[in-house]
Amino acid sequence: MIKASVLGATGYAGVELVRILSKHPAVSFSHLASRSYAGKALSEVYPNFKNVVSLELCELDPVAAANDSDIVFTALPHGASKEVIPLLADKKVKIIDFSGDFRYKSREVYEKWYGEPHSAPELLEKSVYGLCELHRDEIAKASLVGNPGCYTTCSILALAPLVDKEIIHTDNIIIDAKSGVTGAGRSSSTDYSFCECDGNMKAYKIATHRHTSEIEQELSLIAKEEITLSFTPHLIPIKRGILSTCYANLNGEYTDGEIIDVFKDYYKGEYFVRICDKGVLPEVKNVAGSNFVDIGLCVDRRLGRVVVVSCIDNIVKGAAGQAVQNMNIMFGLPESMGIDNAAFYL
Amino acid sequence: MIKASVLGATGYAGVELVRILSKHPAVSFSHLASRSYAGKALSEVYPNFKNVVSLELCELDPVAAANDSDIVFTALPHGASKEVIPLLADKKVKIIDFSGDFRYKSREVYEKWYGEPHSAPELLEKSVYGLCELHRDEIAKASLVGNPGCYTTCSILALAPLVDKEIIHTDNIIIDAKSGVTGAGRSSSTDYSFCECDGNMKAYKIATHRHTSEIEQELSLIAKEEITLSFTPHLIPIKRGILSTCYANLNGEYTDGEIIDVFKDYYKGEYFVRICDKGVLPEVKNVAGSNFVDIGLCVDRRLGRVVVVSCIDNIVKGAAGQAVQNMNIMFGLPESMGIDNAAFYL
Amino acid sequence: MIKASVLGATGYAGVELVRILSKHPAVSFSHLASRSYAGKALSEVYPNFKNVVSLELCELDPVAAANDSDIVFTALPHGASKEVIPLLADKKVKIIDFSGDFRYKSREVYEKWYGEPHSAPELLEKSVYGLCELHRDEIAKASLVGNPGCYTTCSILALAPLVDKEIIHTDNIIIDAKSGVTGAGRSSSTDYSFCECDGNMKAYKIATHRHTSEIEQELSLIAKEEITLSFTPHLIPIKRGILSTCYANLNGEYTDGEIIDVFKDYYKGEYFVRICDKGVLPEVKNVAGSNFVDIGLCVDRRLGRVVVVSCIDNIVKGAAGQAVQNMNIMFGLPESMGIDNAAFYL
Amino acid sequence: MIKASVLGATGYAGVELVRILSKHPAVSFSHLASRSYAGKALSEVYPNFKNVVSLELCELDPVAAANDSDIVFTALPHGASKEVIPLLADKKVKIIDFSGDFRYKSREVYEKWYGEPHSAPELLEKSVYGLCELHRDEIAKASLVGNPGCYTTCSILALAPLVDKEIIHTDNIIIDAKSGVTGAGRSSSTDYSFCECDGNMKAYKIATHRHTSEIEQELSLIAKEEITLSFTPHLIPIKRGILSTCYANLNGEYTDGEIIDVFKDYYKGEYFVRICDKGVLPEVKNVAGSNFVDIGLCVDRRLGRVVVVSCIDNIVKGAAGQAVQNMNIMFGLPESMGIDNAAFYL
Repeated sequence: MIKASVLGATGYAGVELVRILSKHPAVSFSHLASRSYAGKALSEVYPNFKNVVSLELCELDPVAAANDSDIVFTALPHGASKEVIPLLADKKVKIIDFSGDFRYKSREVYEKWYGEPHSAPELLEKSVYGLCELHRDEIAKASLVGNPGCYTTCSILALAPLVDKEIIHTDNIIIDAKSGVTGAGRSSSTDYSFCECDGNMKAYKIATHRHTSEIEQELSLIAKEEITLSFTPHLIPIKRGILSTCYANLNGEYTDGEIIDVFKDYYKGEYFVRICDKGVLPEVKNVAGSNFVDIGLCVDRRLGRVVVVSCIDNIVKGAAGQAVQNMNIMFGLPESMGIDNAAFYL
Repeated sequence: MIKASVLGATGYAGVELVRILSKHPAVSFSHLASRSYAGKALSEVYPNFKNVVSLELCELDPVAAANDSDIVFTALPHGASKEVIPLLADKKVKIIDFSGDFRYKSREVYEKWYGEPHSAPELLEKSVYGLCELHRDEIAKASLVGNPGCYTTCSILALAPLVDKEIIHTDNIIIDAKSGVTGAGRSSSTDYSFCECDGNMKAYKIATHRHTSEIEQELSLIAKEEITLSFTPHLIPIKRGILSTCYANLNGEYTDGEIIDVFKDYYKGEYFVRICDKGVLPEVKNVAGSNFVDIGLCVDRRLGRVVVVSCIDNIVKGAAGQAVQNMNIMFGLPESMGIDNAAFYL
Repeated sequence: MIKASVLGATGYAGVELVRILSKHPAVSFSHLASRSYAGKALSEVYPNFKNVVSLELCELDPVAAANDSDIVFTALPHGASKEVIPLLADKKVKIIDFSGDFRYKSREVYEKWYGEPHSAPELLEKSVYGLCELHRDEIAKASLVGNPGCYTTCSILALAPLVDKEIIHTDNIIIDAKSGVTGAGRSSSTDYSFCECDGNMKAYKIATHRHTSEIEQELSLIAKEEITLSFTPHLIPIKRGILSTCYANLNGEYTDGEIIDVFKDYYKGEYFVRICDKGVLPEVKNVAGSNFVDIGLCVDRRLGRVVVVSCIDNIVKGAAGQAVQNMNIMFGLPESMGIDNAAFYL
Repeated sequence: MIKASVLGATGYAGVELVRILSKHPAVSFSHLASRSYAGKALSEVYPNFKNVVSLELCELDPVAAANDSDIVFTALPHGASKEVIPLLADKKVKIIDFSGDFRYKSREVYEKWYGEPHSAPELLEKSVYGLCELHRDEIAKASLVGNPGCYTTCSILALAPLVDKEIIHTDNIIIDAKSGVTGAGRSSSTDYSFCECDGNMKAYKIATHRHTSEIEQELSLIAKEEITLSFTPHLIPIKRGILSTCYANLNGEYTDGEIIDVFKDYYKGEYFVRICDKGVLPEVKNVAGSNFVDIGLCVDRRLGRVVVVSCIDNIVKGAAGQAVQNMNIMFGLPESMGIDNAAFYL
């Protein structure tokens, strides 16, 4: 059994990871660390685990966790992550980090979008961006994986085939993304209270959201040229799910069928990427609680534009589920082990 | 008192109109007609009206309604509307129609997007498009007003100043719109059941939604050139509200403040249009239950693009409220009479 | 015009009061005081008021408020209310307090259920319990009104006729109440965050909720004997609304119709109390946003028991709306002035 | 592998059963029958199954299903179930029926509450009531199991220990139950549309809901005397979950701890029944998506009454999950196989 530790086990991404790993056939828990709740049973904080996970939450002790584990998942607040990773990096343990710190090839890009110096630039060399469908081989060899953002996973996978096959003009890409409230984490801010969110929606961080740079990095890599694009996140009153609606101008005449075939071919053999047939569009309920990415599209022949809609569960494929997918790859396990369930739908 | 009749009083747009008119100081009800519920008290079908409106729902009799009323609102299903309007048009009564039939200058455009011959093309001449902020003077003289669609009201007002002031390139406009479920009307379709909608979201009718043509008509009029654009509607699990996120490429360098000033100037004196200050974006809860349109924007200087976000209550400013605003204009009443309340917020 | 001040204008009860008063034909605002937001425009904190209320929020200055107003509404946190009321009580101004402090006849009962000494016991003499349908005459003469709790308004009105007409045994009354989340106020507690509340429900404070004592006081007054009862509150993922399901054993054989007649007779002439006909039960959507109380019932002849269901909007009839109803009574205005609108339904 | 067929695979109970069985290590699918969608792939109707279940939905052919299966689950509309069961009953196949038809010991009780003659009274002899925690041994030997109702499972388990240990008076039991909307099935009725349910709640079928008789049957069996009780169902705007609040008068003095111990003892060794510690109450989010039953309680010493709150997922422990638990028992498998996951929480 793989001994796994979760540092930051009581945030939403962390606890979803624990939920998934609790049924993973090849994993046993080592440290479940929580600064806020150390000393309490997990099932005291999250009673849904009673009779399922009987562990006690422990203090955040990165070195001990590293020594006791084959893999450590860090799902810590931005600041905490910075301190912890370097301590883990010296050890033999494999690391999957949920923060933005190790998702970048370029220290400059990170520092520009995060507005602060990188705490461990030397690790950027060895860290791998954990978008499984794009970087499987590097992930397999990696000891430190930067687990991708939720918006970015959803958006990059929606555009990668179009960029790779040079079907679109890359100078006018627009991504309009809508996210559920779990994306904000387990928050006590009034902004995320039930009464402020229910029946409401809004856009936020237009032109400045950090995930923009992550999407641009990956699409630029595929295009072998620098791509810049518009990314607008929205807050929607659902718990789980992201839907990205992506717009790009076609550089030729294409039918829906032709572009759908490009997607099906590009993602051939990918268990978690499901391409919708002509006339079908993805919906959150078909991916919620699962690690699937549903992608549908429509060509607007009148305007020579393609609209691609992609959909994931932000805390599964957008966080905890993809982390498990990365772990499976890093340990040579079947990639879908423990995450091959259908979405809840209801 | 103005004698008002509502044909189709038990659909969501119709009943919202009745709710607003029930407190309008200058209006008394004549016919409240409902095919489904004729003979029942309104308060039997909608118990929220008990002790407020004591009328009985009557059969759909357009001629009688016309004879007994100063104004007739038709909030009927697409088909029914077609039959009824011609019967009303001969009479002296003023008409505000909620269907798409009288929103168009061009019969061809209507027939192209609706896929059927227009039933009363001769009325297109005299009908006026009831987007109050743009056509106030014609509306004041009109006897037949085509009440605008919900998506269109929200989207046109977000883009009109940019088009009018020639601040943007008009060849790359993209509107990503999100609507609450009341937009689908009072529906018994499984697609709109609580269990299918709650926790879900989806895009639909990409590149083919009829409101596209309405938005293009109005923006083209302002631009004095033909504008085509992308419009993508989404279904969001809230009852009331539309949020339109609009993207366009700027034809020069502008700051947020400069463009905000353009909007404030363009809508100077407009009670129902509220332009957000720099750094503020609209939210549905600030307009839900009210006739206000909130508009905020952000310039992406990095990309030379502007993102405008607009927000309305789809069944108030997007339907019943704007109809009352039109009525107020047609009868020379203060434009905000009976619709000057703040949004519910909660 | 009546000059009204609201102390605590930015909590949910306070801001709902401002929303209602902003359209009240006989009221103008004096002080809108907010500790958290003094100095800001109300429309900065609650943008739904832009173009509707242009006032700035001021510091909490009870004496100044009293001097500048005909009536002061105190919608302050429990502690703050204690300090403020005595300062107001010396003045000529009329006071409507939203806290629990002045709802009690007996200082002992208050201190037992609130677990602390009463701060101004001498005022209990002159204060009147503001449940309009039961204490209209005292309210008309009162200078200090203790505005009833939300659960209590809903529950007392559901049981008063049965107790008054001695139709039930008073030793086995059970009230199972369900409330929307606004009942918790504008909260930044994780317990009331969207992700913790949406899709969830729970009971809380079983056998210990303070409103129990308020209900017992009023029903005991009617019964002229001490009544004790079970009251269980539940948290439901809606914003507005309370539904109380009340159980009592009948002391004889009755039909639905007979008991419905008792209710209709008991509440004859009461505009805000609507008794459902046989076979009809109240629903939150029929009262949300309105000051109405809907009451329906069903006799279980098999068990000799009656089940009464009552429904209100917790922040309107359960707080701000009833406060305005009290104000109307205190100033000799038509009781429904400014609060006679139908529920939103949608 | 156990060959399992689901007749009625596209209703909510049926499709949830398919979702659970799709990950059950000991089960393979035989017939997935759907009258509405025969001939379509399951993943066309429910796209969440794409890449997980690749079966096509077939016509409803009970005999063929029986011949091809070790167990047949019937999750059909009331009428359809009646016709199908007798055809299956002759065969060697084991049957778990989701309808009310085989939950009763007494034909008279069934006919009284269902208002129609029973279609196969001869089968009542051999059928077993599938409330696993109460009838495990009979279920192990049964060939026909009547899978319990959702409200009944939740309510019976909350009261069984009190009745069995004779801690309460049985003449004044009141059950106030709240259910999510999936309880109504996959409905196209306007009553269950998003806009009618969201933000709303209501009671329904007071004193007449069929589940009353099921609860009375089981508690009477335990009490060895006839018990009658009040049961009131409510509709709450969530998808999954039932919460039952049960009231009973104690026949002596007890502390919370004493009664909690009675429950813990009564359910000792029951994996799926989780008794909350003193001061803790169950919440839907802790059981949603799982087969667990959470039970908490509070003694009201002032009134000599106990309030027990129980919570389940209505389509898991209240339907599909308990059906799988029954199957596990019938085939001698570990009782929690395939249903031992934690609740979703989010």
